Amino acid sequence: MTLLVTGASGFVGREVACLLADQGGNGVVRLTDRTEPPIPIGSGFEAVAFDLGDTEHLDTLLEGVDRIIHLAAVPGGATEQAPAFARRINVDAPLAILEFLDQVGRPCRFVYASSIAILGTIATPVDDETVPVPATLYGAHKRMIEIALSQFARRGSVRGIGLRLPGIVARPMGPSGLASAFMSELFHAALESRPMTLPVSADASIWILSARQAAWNLVHALHCDIEDGISLTCPALHVTIEQLVQQLFLDPAQVRHAPDPELQRLFGSQPALTTPSATKAGFRADESLEALIASVFASICAQAPSIVR
Amino acid sequence: MTLLVTGASGFVGREVACLLADQGGNGVVRLTDRTEPPIPIGSGFEAVAFDLGDTEHLDTLLEGVDRIIHLAAVPGGATEQAPAFARRINVDAPLAILEFLDQVGRPCRFVYASSIAILGTIATPVDDETVPVPATLYGAHKRMIEIALSQFARRGSVRGIGLRLPGIVARPMGPSGLASAFMSELFHAALESRPMTLPVSADASIWILSARQAAWNLVHALHCDIEDGISLTCPALHVTIEQLVQQLFLDPAQVRHAPDPELQRLFGSQPALTTPSATKAGFRADESLEALIASVFASICAQAPSIVR
Repeated sequence: MTLLVTGASGFVGREVACLLADQGGNGVVRLTDRTEPPIPIGSGFEAVAFDLGDTEHLDTLLEGVDRIIHLAAVPGGATEQAPAFARRINVDAPLAILEFLDQVGRPCRFVYASSIAILGTIATPVDDETVPVPATLYGAHKRMIEIALSQFARRGSVRGIGLRLPGIVARPMGPSGLASAFMSELFHAALESRPMTLPVSADASIWILSARQAAWNLVHALHCDIEDGISLTCPALHVTIEQLVQQLFLDPAQVRHAPDPELQRLFGSQPALTTPSATKAGFRADESLEALIASVFASICAQAPSIVR
Repeated sequence: MTLLVTGASGFVGREVACLLADQGGNGVVRLTDRTEPPIPIGSGFEAVAFDLGDTEHLDTLLEGVDRIIHLAAVPGGATEQAPAFARRINVDAPLAILEFLDQVGRPCRFVYASSIAILGTIATPVDDETVPVPATLYGAHKRMIEIALSQFARRGSVRGIGLRLPGIVARPMGPSGLASAFMSELFHAALESRPMTLPVSADASIWILSARQAAWNLVHALHCDIEDGISLTCPALHVTIEQLVQQLFLDPAQVRHAPDPELQRLFGSQPALTTPSATKAGFRADESLEALIASVFASICAQAPSIVR
């Protein structure tokens, strides 16, 4: 029994690894990323440096694997900058994995980290009936794999599930290629009590999930009872930037707003969200905004360079 | 001014080339396929043998190209048989072309031959609001490129249009990798006055378009006035197999039925079809079943090996 986690050096991947270590009993857990991912304390972990663009050698990476959490992706901003490079990771790599599993005929659970980017920009409340119309190339890439996943599930090659993740906080500081990085930066600014200018307005509304809750949902997806091949929007908290700032900052006046129309359109206009299918299948948002903030601060501290688990 | 036609050795590609020759005034027309395509009588035609799986050398194929009709594809049956091979042609090749055009920043019309396979199996009448839910890997591949096309159009890399073609008749006899090949075979059987057993019932209903009308629509798409990046379902005749058999065969009793549940589900249960957007943009079905049959018989005779244009 081997579980492969791709993108395991990323901030969500690290939370997944830590959660698996805490849970125990997951057999072999193979963590992979372009550079060798950190290994949490616990037994059964392997770390493998692997370029997922190198689809010729997937057989070594996938040897013995019967469960996958596929997190590896080039994020939205970077995808718009370099479409061909991003495609190798966002489209070719998951397709090659699915085709490999199809060919070897090994039943495998494939948890695909999709994204609300597949929904595009939407004015009306979102629910399970909302038709995805991606508004970015990144959203298009994610939607393309959801569609392929459903077909490989129909063929019986994988027991696939796509989980559409919302804005996940808080990504470490530094260049991320993520157009929505300001959401994470807000948490870091609050922790460091420094002023910040946001590219969205105070009344911008967003869907948000802590990295730990995202990890919990991804691991839950490994064994939840759900129709094969389906993609679901993950539960998330729906909050305004103002609510977030009020809760995060002792002095909310430290936050200024200089809305960028494009970012406001893509990341600041998220309507009400209901996720009946995902909720029924046991997926969860953070319990409250307070709980989310506590979870995020705990992650940031645990992953700070000075505190190595 | 150079127009590239991929899949130009196929039966639709040949009709496109002949139509372009009849029209004249299309500048350079570069016909390409894995093997060198036939060139119709007329000036300006080039024939190039090119493996679209070889995306490293697209620059030579696309040199000077400002209009593309992209027909090359591995059909549905063959795609289910060999997903990874099919993906190279159905997904990687058009993505690489779109990425190449995006990178060189050359405005290019990109007419993408999509397919009604993106719609999946549908019980209710189809119109422009129908949500695509592919039921085959081929349909998934086609839908993936529609989604990418809309994003490259948004980015301004191409003036893209996807045209969802229905069952096109009549493909030449012989192995085609097409699960719906029986539709074409029916025409050949009628021409040769020989008995045939169909894998669908007499009351099976299908959408159908002659190869010549398909070619006309694809060429029309080069210059029609339509929103960039959109994909449209092409108008088609909606007929039952019984209507077709009655019209085609002097002795309809030559046709027997041994329905295959899977083929009946995929190709014999097509509901009413309205295509307001495509019709408004000037796309057309064959005028009548009689006109379609005449057009198909003319194509078969013109493309028969003994009659080289």
